Amino acid sequence: MRVDGKVYRSIWLAEDGIGVEIIDQTLLPFQFKVVRLETVEQAMDAISRMLVRGAPLIGATAAYGLCLGLRRSGTTEALREMATGLIACRPTAINLRWAVERMLELLLPLPEEQRLALAYLEAGRICEEDVATNEAIGRHGVGLIEAVAAQNGGRPVNVLTHCNAGWLATVDWGTALAPIFKAVEAGIPVHVWVDETRPRNQGASLTAWELVAAGIPHHLIVDNAGGHLMQHGRVDLCIVGTDRTTASGDVCNKIGTYLKALAAADNKVPFYVALPGSTVDWTVSDGVVEIPIEEREQEEVLRIMGRDDHDEVRRVAIAPSATPAVNPAFDVTPARLVTGLITERGICPASRDGLLGLYPERRR
Amino acid sequence: MRVDGKVYRSIWLAEDGIGVEIIDQTLLPFQFKVVRLETVEQAMDAISRMLVRGAPLIGATAAYGLCLGLRRSGTTEALREMATGLIACRPTAINLRWAVERMLELLLPLPEEQRLALAYLEAGRICEEDVATNEAIGRHGVGLIEAVAAQNGGRPVNVLTHCNAGWLATVDWGTALAPIFKAVEAGIPVHVWVDETRPRNQGASLTAWELVAAGIPHHLIVDNAGGHLMQHGRVDLCIVGTDRTTASGDVCNKIGTYLKALAAADNKVPFYVALPGSTVDWTVSDGVVEIPIEEREQEEVLRIMGRDDHDEVRRVAIAPSATPAVNPAFDVTPARLVTGLITERGICPASRDGLLGLYPERRR
Repeated sequence: MRVDGKVYRSIWLAEDGIGVEIIDQTLLPFQFKVVRLETVEQAMDAISRMLVRGAPLIGATAAYGLCLGLRRSGTTEALREMATGLIACRPTAINLRWAVERMLELLLPLPEEQRLALAYLEAGRICEEDVATNEAIGRHGVGLIEAVAAQNGGRPVNVLTHCNAGWLATVDWGTALAPIFKAVEAGIPVHVWVDETRPRNQGASLTAWELVAAGIPHHLIVDNAGGHLMQHGRVDLCIVGTDRTTASGDVCNKIGTYLKALAAADNKVPFYVALPGSTVDWTVSDGVVEIPIEEREQEEVLRIMGRDDHDEVRRVAIAPSATPAVNPAFDVTPARLVTGLITERGICPASRDGLLGLYPERRR
Repeated sequence: MRVDGKVYRSIWLAEDGIGVEIIDQTLLPFQFKVVRLETVEQAMDAISRMLVRGAPLIGATAAYGLCLGLRRSGTTEALREMATGLIACRPTAINLRWAVERMLELLLPLPEEQRLALAYLEAGRICEEDVATNEAIGRHGVGLIEAVAAQNGGRPVNVLTHCNAGWLATVDWGTALAPIFKAVEAGIPVHVWVDETRPRNQGASLTAWELVAAGIPHHLIVDNAGGHLMQHGRVDLCIVGTDRTTASGDVCNKIGTYLKALAAADNKVPFYVALPGSTVDWTVSDGVVEIPIEEREQEEVLRIMGRDDHDEVRRVAIAPSATPAVNPAFDVTPARLVTGLITERGICPASRDGLLGLYPERRR
C-alpha cells in the first residue's frame, strides 16, 4: 500500500538482501518509522514489543528472523534454539508457530551450508503467499460492497470495522480491509466507520492511519456508537477480521466484536468476517466454551497512549489510582450472528457445511 | 455520601446561608475540589462547563442559581432574563427547564421583596425531594440484588453499570447506583463492573471514583468487554440510568447502553433501568424514531483527558490529525430489551401498562 506516494509492505527484505525492514507500529499514528532488523534477537524483540503485530505479519517476521539468525550459525542446534525462542515471543499466535515450523521442516533436512539461501527464499515465499491470500479475500469481498453500491444510487457504502485487520496486520492488503481497498480501486465510493477499539485503540491508531494514507473517507467512532448508527440506517455492512475461527463458524476476534454482531443482527445489517483459511481451527467447535480468552494486563485499560499538545507521545491514567481493571482481549461471536465468511477461496455461510464446501480437503 | 469520612452531597447551601457549594466534577477522579458559587453567572458557567452534570443536579444548580441572581435584583424582568439564560446553558436537559419553570411559577406571583427568601426555600425543597426520590429508587432496587445474593451462596453479586448514574449525577444517592449503595448498607456483598463509557469516560472518572470513596469492590472494564463477561456468567445483573424514558418504556441513555442491553438479552442477564418518574416523557412513544440524539463535538472522541506520570492532567490525541470523528452522545434501548424499570414508586415492566400502573395519574 502507498504511504506518502511510496509503495510499502509491512515487512520487506532490505536492498542489500541481508537486513529485513519493518514499520514500528507502536509509533503509529504519530510517527512513521522504518526499523531495520539485523539479528534474530532484534526480530524477537520486534515481535515481543509489538513493533509488528497481526498474526500473518508475526509469522513472516519470525520466518525472516530465522534467516537473520542463520547468518551467524547454521547448525541444527542453533536453528532449533532460535525456533523455540521465536515461538515463545507470542505464545498464543497460531501463525507464529506455523511459520517457524514450516521453516524448520524445510531447513532441517538440508546440509548446513545450503540453509541460509533457502531460508531467505522460503521467508519470501511465505510473504508472497500471504499477499496473494489477502488479495483474493479482497477480490471476493468487494462484490458485497459493489452489491450495496448498485442499490443505493451513488451514495457511499458505509462499512463498519472493528480493530485493525488492514495491511499492517498482514504483509499487504489485510483481511477485513482488503475488500475496501479493492472497492476504492474499482471506483466504488466507500466510507468507513472505524471503531476506536479500546483498550489498545487499534482502530484509532492503525486503521484510521491506513485509511488516511490511502485517502479513503472515514470517521472514528467510540466502540459504544456502532449500535446507534445501525439503528439509524447509517451502516450498510460490517466487515471484521478474526484471530481464530472454529470449524462451526464461531469467530474469536478483538474484544467488542460480539457486541457489534448483536447490533448488526438486531438491525438486519450484514455482518461479515474476513479470514485466510489458515485461521480456521478445525479442532474446535463451540467457540464460547472451548476457546480460552487471554486476559491482558490492566494497565492497557487504565492508561491510554496519545500525543499531547507539545507533540510528545505519553500515557495518561484515566481512573482513580485505587481502581483495578479487568482486560479480556478477545471475545467470541457465535456463528448464528455471522452473515458469512470471506475467505481466499470465496464467501461461505458461517457453518461447518459452509466451511467444508470451501475446504473439502478437511472432510473426514 | 462519604468522601474521606465526611458526608457530602453534590450541591449544598454554604454555612453562611448565601453561597452555594458544588464539587468541580471536571477535575474528578484526579482532584476533589469544592467550588463556591456566588452569582447566577457562576452557576451558569458551572452548568455550561459541566462542573456539574447529571439531569437532577443540573436542575438543582439552576434553582440555586436563581437564588444567587435574586440577591442582586428581584425584579420580574431580571428573573425572566436569568431563567432564559440558565435554560440555554444545556438546552437538552429536561430537568433544567423543569426546575427553572417550577421556580418561576412560585416566584413570579410574589411581591419582589418576598422572592429571595422563598427562592432559597424552594431550591432547598427541590434538593430534598431529589434525595428522597433517589433513596426510594435504592430501596426498591436493592431487592433485586438481594434476590441474586440469596441464590448464589455468598458470592458477591456482580452488577454491571454504564456511565455515571451515581450520587454525583443527582443531589445524593444517584439512580442506578442507589440500589448498590443500599445493598452495601444492608451487608450484601456486591462487586461492580464499571464500563469506561467513552468518549467522556464517566465510568472511569466518576463511577469508579464514587465506588472507591464508598469502599465498594469494583473493576473498570472497556466498553467492549461487557458482552464477553456476560457470555461467561460473570454478570448477574445490569443496572443503568436514563436521560429520558418514553411512555412505552424505551430508554434513552448514554451511548453504548443499547449494546449492553443486547448482550444482556442474548445471555439472559436481567437488564434494569433506574429512573425518577420525572424523566418519563409521556409525549413520546417510539424512542428510536422520535428522540433526537445530540451529536457532540468530535474532540471528545479524538482527545482523551488523563493524568500523566508527573501528576499533571492533560489531553492526548489518539488518532491521526487527518481523521475526523462522529460523536453521538446517547442511544435508545427499545423496551423489549429492558427487564424492568426501577422508580421511586416501585419496579414495573418497561411498557405503557407497566408505567401507568405506577403513575395512574397519567392515564387519560
